[in-house]
Amino acid sequence: MKKPFRLAVKAVIADGKGCCLLIRRSHKCRNLVGKWEWPGGKVNPGEDFATAVVRETKEETSLEVGITGVAGATHFEMAAANIVLLCLETRLIAGEVRLSDEHDDFAWVPFGESARYQLVSGVGDFMLDYAKRKGTTS
Amino acid sequence: MKKPFRLAVKAVIADGKGCCLLIRRSHKCRNLVGKWEWPGGKVNPGEDFATAVVRETKEETSLEVGITGVAGATHFEMAAANIVLLCLETRLIAGEVRLSDEHDDFAWVPFGESARYQLVSGVGDFMLDYAKRKGTTS
Repeated sequence: MKKPFRLAVKAVIADGKGCCLLIRRSHKCRNLVGKWEWPGGKVNPGEDFATAVVRETKEETSLEVGITGVAGATHFEMAAANIVLLCLETRLIAGEVRLSDEHDDFAWVPFGESARYQLVSGVGDFMLDYAKRKGTTS
Repeated sequence: MKKPFRLAVKAVIADGKGCCLLIRRSHKCRNLVGKWEWPGGKVNPGEDFATAVVRETKEETSLEVGITGVAGATHFEMAAANIVLLCLETRLIAGEVRLSDEHDDFAWVPFGESARYQLVSGVGDFMLDYAKRKGTTS
């Protein structure tokens, strides 16, 4: 792992009824077009991870969320960097979903149905493992 | 979770022979004296998590390590903050263990024997879950 490490964050936004928000990558994305993911993105240099996950969620979905816990962490390799992905459990504070042009569809998905969606590669297995844990423990 | 969030990092230092390094908290620590843990500590404001885990490991053990992967993440609550703990898998690059005064003993422990040690509360369950996964998959 000679490449530099970058921290990225994802928000698992629970609706309190056993579902979480998935959003679909649009043609504006450079890769993984059409794949589903949790909202999130890179932490800016000097930025706090908690600020970053709230900011990215707001930018991508217009939702205001608050962190409630930690879903876990995973990593994947990109051309220029190793991405370490810290996934935070969040709750919805305010807002309704309005997507930016990076995404073109959204769904509130029961954890048990996550496997029906074409999830982003690299992170999909982690998302399914998490969904399985949530599906049996909550 | 109204308290601010702080990011901390831990290094799972593998020796390539199925063991990882545990260090024991000394009487210089304000709490959890005598408990065993992975090296690590808080990420400084503006500091990169990868820099922090290498720096903390060096300070606490004098070992030079490189990140090889992600062990996972967990969190616990302290008096003043919610600590999100990002645990990195690392490999030993150079050095021999010399502890700072924050720790008074160390052991290279087979993953399967982690449960014999009195681990730090709050993180011990996560450490054992990880050890179980490593014990059966590597």
